[in-house]
Amino acid sequence: MILEVAEIHIHAGQQQAFDEAIALGLRTVIARSEGYRGHRVLKGIESPERYLLLIHWDTVEAHTVGFRQSPAFEEWRALLHHFYDPFPVVEHYARVLEAERQEAP
Amino acid sequence: MILEVAEIHIHAGQQQAFDEAIALGLRTVIARSEGYRGHRVLKGIESPERYLLLIHWDTVEAHTVGFRQSPAFEEWRALLHHFYDPFPVVEHYARVLEAERQEAP
Repeated sequence: MILEVAEIHIHAGQQQAFDEAIALGLRTVIARSEGYRGHRVLKGIESPERYLLLIHWDTVEAHTVGFRQSPAFEEWRALLHHFYDPFPVVEHYARVLEAERQEAP
Repeated sequence: MILEVAEIHIHAGQQQAFDEAIALGLRTVIARSEGYRGHRVLKGIESPERYLLLIHWDTVEAHTVGFRQSPAFEEWRALLHHFYDPFPVVEHYARVLEAERQEAP
């Protein structure tokens, strides 16, 4: 399993509309894609126009080929691309280490 | 709970030494800090000198004050700072959305 990480910066003042659009896109487009395993959306504390979108896929190709070359990608673009300023930087990562404090709730 | 995200880029060819140093630092320094909740280290697939370090803290201040103003921060610096090129960009994020595919293993 790999992680797609998109650093997103949106136009100022559009957080609420973006929050709704990305929730819709993740639920109706991304979550139905082959090889999708889960996602997380994080919002910047210092920079409220900044987001990180993390999507778990089975493989890099599930994202770059399976998703991006499918009609679903056009639906995703139509929902979200007008919010971006500038266009997001997207990289793929493999997990190296992970831990949680034992006594965490 | 908030997430510290550090975008790390290290000198070429030092991945193995960095992997060992960051594992040691997380285990012996970060995991003992007040307000620490868990961490994840991700390694770039397209860019093998690129890493993301994600650390869950109870609050932003647990990281920026409790950790960075403690002697532990000097131990962390001594273990890791010579790997960085350039110095990492660190931001804090709040979780907005999270989901996993129901049938995921």
